[in-house]
Amino acid sequence: MRFTSEQRLDDGVIERQFFLGEIPGVLWTPGSPSGPVPLVLLGHPGGLHRMYPRLVSRARGCAASGFASATIELPGSGDRPPVSTIQRARADLRRTLSAGETVDPELIDRLILPLVERAVPEWRATIDALLAHAEVGGPIGYSGGVISIGIRLAIIEPRIVAAGLFAGSFVPRTMLDEARRVTIPLHVLLQWDDEGNDRQMALDLFDAFGSNEKTLHANLGGHTGVPKFAGDDVARFFARHLK
Amino acid sequence: MRFTSEQRLDDGVIERQFFLGEIPGVLWTPGSPSGPVPLVLLGHPGGLHRMYPRLVSRARGCAASGFASATIELPGSGDRPPVSTIQRARADLRRTLSAGETVDPELIDRLILPLVERAVPEWRATIDALLAHAEVGGPIGYSGGVISIGIRLAIIEPRIVAAGLFAGSFVPRTMLDEARRVTIPLHVLLQWDDEGNDRQMALDLFDAFGSNEKTLHANLGGHTGVPKFAGDDVARFFARHLK
Repeated sequence: MRFTSEQRLDDGVIERQFFLGEIPGVLWTPGSPSGPVPLVLLGHPGGLHRMYPRLVSRARGCAASGFASATIELPGSGDRPPVSTIQRARADLRRTLSAGETVDPELIDRLILPLVERAVPEWRATIDALLAHAEVGGPIGYSGGVISIGIRLAIIEPRIVAAGLFAGSFVPRTMLDEARRVTIPLHVLLQWDDEGNDRQMALDLFDAFGSNEKTLHANLGGHTGVPKFAGDDVARFFARHLK
Repeated sequence: MRFTSEQRLDDGVIERQFFLGEIPGVLWTPGSPSGPVPLVLLGHPGGLHRMYPRLVSRARGCAASGFASATIELPGSGDRPPVSTIQRARADLRRTLSAGETVDPELIDRLILPLVERAVPEWRATIDALLAHAEVGGPIGYSGGVISIGIRLAIIEPRIVAAGLFAGSFVPRTMLDEARRVTIPLHVLLQWDDEGNDRQMALDLFDAFGSNEKTLHANLGGHTGVPKFAGDDVARFFARHLK
């Protein structure tokens, strides 16, 4: 992990850009940490530059709770080299959506499954590298989308103890079986009128999760319309489970 | 409204038993109110004595937010004279449930609609009487079940500005149409495995509500298993809308 820049934001949060091999990422830590602090991994749909304003806002929220947070670029997104299978599936999805046609489950599999296969080991390597950093400890939470990445990580990465998942992306059918194997506490955010999301699939996933503590927060509005109070609820969920 | 008793609880909250005509009720006010305070109406499934522990706990929460709260006995419940139509429908429901049979929508209509017809004017008369009390002001919220009573009140009682509804009771089909006419901010609590509740109906209701701000909080567990943090979320909802 090579840090390439460090700056202090106006609220004291320290933001460090890094590369893990060829993967760009960002680490945010509270301005005055008292030893190693818990870590929240910030999931997103890909495109770090485009997502930066929303990511830094979530990172400030984590820091206010006393947590570090970090994110990495998704495979095939932003400045990373394209992944041909994912690129083809994305183009097909765009065509399908702009033609107003129903999205074939097979297309969702082609888009999401290779993303999960590639992104999950990268997130795990990022955890290894971040835990070597003096200011970062545990426990670790995963927050956001792509929900299928969060589900797979929740199953296979024992260092992740809680997940706040955003039901805002297409979900392969096989994820229902994976959801049954999730046992960590979950907080699922669903935008009721999300244009890029199958509401029934989100409800089925919530039903399938094997966790003893799982909460669904559904709010009116589209994909980017998460109300501020719903974000505050996510922060309180992590405060309960990472402290 | 005749007050029949007054006591100060250990946390300073003042609890007053009252009768409105023949209807027994309870008013809770913060220990040291600074003039008239907002009011939360505490809905419940009937049976004030049986429900008292949970009601007083909710009332203490309201007082902690600086709000008064009040409840009245439902028609045909507790110490009130039985209502033959409701009594018959309740007996039929018990028989149906203990036989493990599906509950006929017509039976739900017979049980809930007369309850709504009778309870709603009683709640409105209670609001009139409570607002004459020096410590009680506005705005007013409705909190809890029976959800159909909360829906009808939300439509016809303009003094109610926000409702935290508990999706924990059977709902007549016609309530879907009434739900579309609700426009006040809503916070809907759903216990995912509620034995006495149709989950799909709760989701359909949530979808139907006409409000611009509506939030669904679903948690794992049965009817009485609402987690403490979910109760705290309801308190925050009212704090946002009654202050």
